[in-house]
Amino acid sequence: MEEIKTRLAEFRAAMKKAGVAAAIIPQTDAHLGEYIADHWQVRRWLSGFTGSAGTLVFAPSETLLWTDSRYFLQANEQLAGTGITLMKEGIPGTPTIAAYLAANLVKGSAVGLDGKLFATTEIADLRAKLEKHGLRLDTHFDPIDALWADRPELPSAAVFIHEEKFAGRSAADKIRDTLAQAREQGADSMFVSGLDEIAWVLNLRSSDVKRTPVATAFLYLSAKGSTLFIKPEKISREVRAYIDEIGLTVRPYDAALPMLNALPDDALVLIEAPRTSQAVVDALGSRAVFGASPIVALKAVKNQVQIAGIRKAMEHDGAAMTLSLIEIERRMAAGNALTELDIEEILTRHRSAQPYYFDDSFDTIAGYGPHGAIVHYSATPESASRLKPEGLLLIDSGAQYLWGTTDITRTIALGTPTPAEKRDFTLVMKGHIALATAIFPEGTRGGQLDALARQFLWQEGLSYLHGTGHGVGHFLSVHEGPQSIRLNDVPYDLKPGMLTSNEPGLYRAGVHGIRCENLVLTVPAFTTEFGNFYRFETMTLCPFDRSLFDTAMMTRREIEWVNAYHEEVYRRVSPLLEEDARAWLAEKTKPLEV
Amino acid sequence: MEEIKTRLAEFRAAMKKAGVAAAIIPQTDAHLGEYIADHWQVRRWLSGFTGSAGTLVFAPSETLLWTDSRYFLQANEQLAGTGITLMKEGIPGTPTIAAYLAANLVKGSAVGLDGKLFATTEIADLRAKLEKHGLRLDTHFDPIDALWADRPELPSAAVFIHEEKFAGRSAADKIRDTLAQAREQGADSMFVSGLDEIAWVLNLRSSDVKRTPVATAFLYLSAKGSTLFIKPEKISREVRAYIDEIGLTVRPYDAALPMLNALPDDALVLIEAPRTSQAVVDALGSRAVFGASPIVALKAVKNQVQIAGIRKAMEHDGAAMTLSLIEIERRMAAGNALTELDIEEILTRHRSAQPYYFDDSFDTIAGYGPHGAIVHYSATPESASRLKPEGLLLIDSGAQYLWGTTDITRTIALGTPTPAEKRDFTLVMKGHIALATAIFPEGTRGGQLDALARQFLWQEGLSYLHGTGHGVGHFLSVHEGPQSIRLNDVPYDLKPGMLTSNEPGLYRAGVHGIRCENLVLTVPAFTTEFGNFYRFETMTLCPFDRSLFDTAMMTRREIEWVNAYHEEVYRRVSPLLEEDARAWLAEKTKPLEV
Repeated sequence: MEEIKTRLAEFRAAMKKAGVAAAIIPQTDAHLGEYIADHWQVRRWLSGFTGSAGTLVFAPSETLLWTDSRYFLQANEQLAGTGITLMKEGIPGTPTIAAYLAANLVKGSAVGLDGKLFATTEIADLRAKLEKHGLRLDTHFDPIDALWADRPELPSAAVFIHEEKFAGRSAADKIRDTLAQAREQGADSMFVSGLDEIAWVLNLRSSDVKRTPVATAFLYLSAKGSTLFIKPEKISREVRAYIDEIGLTVRPYDAALPMLNALPDDALVLIEAPRTSQAVVDALGSRAVFGASPIVALKAVKNQVQIAGIRKAMEHDGAAMTLSLIEIERRMAAGNALTELDIEEILTRHRSAQPYYFDDSFDTIAGYGPHGAIVHYSATPESASRLKPEGLLLIDSGAQYLWGTTDITRTIALGTPTPAEKRDFTLVMKGHIALATAIFPEGTRGGQLDALARQFLWQEGLSYLHGTGHGVGHFLSVHEGPQSIRLNDVPYDLKPGMLTSNEPGLYRAGVHGIRCENLVLTVPAFTTEFGNFYRFETMTLCPFDRSLFDTAMMTRREIEWVNAYHEEVYRRVSPLLEEDARAWLAEKTKPLEV
Repeated sequence: MEEIKTRLAEFRAAMKKAGVAAAIIPQTDAHLGEYIADHWQVRRWLSGFTGSAGTLVFAPSETLLWTDSRYFLQANEQLAGTGITLMKEGIPGTPTIAAYLAANLVKGSAVGLDGKLFATTEIADLRAKLEKHGLRLDTHFDPIDALWADRPELPSAAVFIHEEKFAGRSAADKIRDTLAQAREQGADSMFVSGLDEIAWVLNLRSSDVKRTPVATAFLYLSAKGSTLFIKPEKISREVRAYIDEIGLTVRPYDAALPMLNALPDDALVLIEAPRTSQAVVDALGSRAVFGASPIVALKAVKNQVQIAGIRKAMEHDGAAMTLSLIEIERRMAAGNALTELDIEEILTRHRSAQPYYFDDSFDTIAGYGPHGAIVHYSATPESASRLKPEGLLLIDSGAQYLWGTTDITRTIALGTPTPAEKRDFTLVMKGHIALATAIFPEGTRGGQLDALARQFLWQEGLSYLHGTGHGVGHFLSVHEGPQSIRLNDVPYDLKPGMLTSNEPGLYRAGVHGIRCENLVLTVPAFTTEFGNFYRFETMTLCPFDRSLFDTAMMTRREIEWVNAYHEEVYRRVSPLLEEDARAWLAEKTKPLEV
């Protein structure tokens, strides 16, 4: 605690020296990532708060942390004694950071931040709001290196090649496509900050960031010669030969911004503003061509090799899930003292035994009973519930395989489910099935289909506030754009080859949480005089808990869908299982009793 | 034809004199309306094309008319011999007007238009596009008065009061609310261009525009004194007394812009940019406060008096529809030679016999057989089909009553329907019912519910491209915002008190068209721990054609909805009918045969 107070005081001294009256410390890196390496965990170091979302603000009379409802409890505990005030985002009456600063700073004051850590769009918005109140922004305030003596280095994990037999296309091909599309947007080159974009376009991976196999780097693409800005020690001789073959120059990570600064005045460099920091835009000046990253759109549409790989990954992930569910069931039956924390260990053990397993794709969420109702629950040794032979257990987990990324949620009954549990589960599944069986015309956005998954809950006065579906990367980020299926509208349509989750849920505070998640691939359905129609192919392979269906609430078509899905799960997963696991799976995939 | 050619030539002479290389003539008025008075029918006068949508462009080497697919046939015929080139909007390869001008004008050229007839947002967009190609915009090019010798005067129809017993709130109240909301947006006054906004806020109506009971005027609202800019001869002594009582000053219509110009420099005048012309923005200069019109949002939510009036209007409109359907059926049975044109006459005759009838709310669409598949079909003496005892007749019609505006579409079988006709109709009705019975949480936008109405068609590879629902005014425009239920997302949620259409359809080119339209009111459903939920109350009262339902395709719940709806139609409409019409309605509202 005293350590935190010292850090805060030293930071304030640096503010004074730099002449800024306030400062903002975000939770991101120079690539504007969601998952970040330790080097960038500045907000955690300064405040002691470890949540994955939250912004620290130094105002003249107080220090504050803005975070969302997932972290209210945790922030309260971790900030106790630091003197930092918790600002609850999304609660009526909580001002935005800009509004707070406008109300609490004297006209003419400067607000300091590090322009490398904010999208240029965020800066423009913030600047406009502050200037309206006579405040100015200093985007070059970055005292951390001097203050943080043992700051972790930039990560140095080795880079490796994601082979074409998994990726389906060569890096040279992808660079060509990307540059062709950049030219259509009036640019002659492109600067890429997003680590998953760089990983995809170059077929390179690393383990700089937990759960997402990316390398910390910047990439400049140009027909006249492209450059990868990366720590040289990350590049082995083999990878160096591969990079040479693509025709890429390697330069140190820190050389990226100076290189942009030194480009000819008439260079036309495409960037996507919300994915690019203010520091990059400052370095580019009038050379910046604001547009959409072609890589985001190209990456979202999986090719046939990727799709074949995803199918294999799903079969093996289904086998790992089956073995995990069997182990949970048997250890519970044997009276073993299982807790929520054991679930992650069990799942990771079975997954890591599967071919081409690399890592989990995110930290497993295992929420028993009331914990299931906390959407982003993460068990700790202190919080972990002991599982009992009753109630519902929600398990959301996934893995990074070389041939694809998985993400699956199952909700299972640990005892004989109550009618209320069955009713809630069946309402969620009716929505899941409605989305899984939807057919929709070319051009349809996910936001148009979202209500199909919610309609049955809404009829009963129930709802869930998270999205119904997010895009999923290929041996990359488990959350990727541009498509999504959610309450708010996102202006990207669902194209054949896109992989998206289908995960409606229901959370009764203090009681239980239910979520049913499969990944679905958009595929062509048919073409009529009214145009092209698409549908979803469900990719995930793992039974839903048969004991939780109330078939009296289901239509014949819904029951048939569950039975056909379970039949396919058995057909494709059982060949990977030993005799007794196969028998278990056969039992769990029998047709529903009507 | 020669007349048109002369007009075009004289217009070109005026262009030369003004030094503009190109000119754009839109189809709107200084209030940016969709339905406009004869005075503003400049594009029609210049080109001879009478469609309600289309823009005329004078380029150096040709004259062109951009219009959409509704009008391709009509434009082709009406433009023949004029030398005007038809540009088909929405067809791949058709450039936008800006792109066409950029490609066909010499750098440095000026494009002329009348800034009074373009929203300031349109001008900004056009200017940016043209300047990119070295072209400039002259927004003061308005030679029409000089060229059009017998140009119709601005309309002079008398203004009348829409009494509070219909409107439910006093003008003074509405002005107070509007100004309070304008202040929240940082303005001290507001300038209103929209004729329906002015009509609503002042409880005044007129008949300047066909089908929409508005008066041509501008309105300046300010706590220090408000001004109505209108032709003085439109104001009777009675209306003058009413206006005086509200505390409004009346000034001539043409005094509006000079008044804005003469406002003190520190005035803060709220305008909504897409609803305000460039000329108004030019007159305001830095006094303009860009925001959202409070009137649009206030007007959309109907009060209890309006809602009670709408219920009455619907009962009487249902009676008029019933009598019309009976007349069509009986005259057909008697072998009378009915055409599509007769349908409008029959409907208008029965509607105009209802209490508080003022006008139809739009030109009736009566499309028989293949004509039903033309979404905005308007029969002419040349095109009108003779009705035969077979096939489908689509009738879309409505009226302006003092207590509300109606809009209803019914599709009826003139003979014994075929299985294919029943199948198509039932698919449309399943969507209609899904929307009619939807329950949704507070904050839901229409775009989120749209797919509920389309899902059954999509499953069969069918679709329709128009919106599923539009807002409806109260004794005002039959199309009003801000809410809508459509394929593209509109950022306004459905609030209790909003009146919206529910009108899915299906159009098989060359075969038939089907549309089933009722108006629905958003009302509270219930409140749970998950928040407030809303539903729709169906307001329109008229039977759907029972012979067109294929009950084998319907769920029990869908059949029950139709039966309950028909029961209510009978209960509320039959008291307004004579004995034999009542018997007819009883027959048409019997439960569906299963």
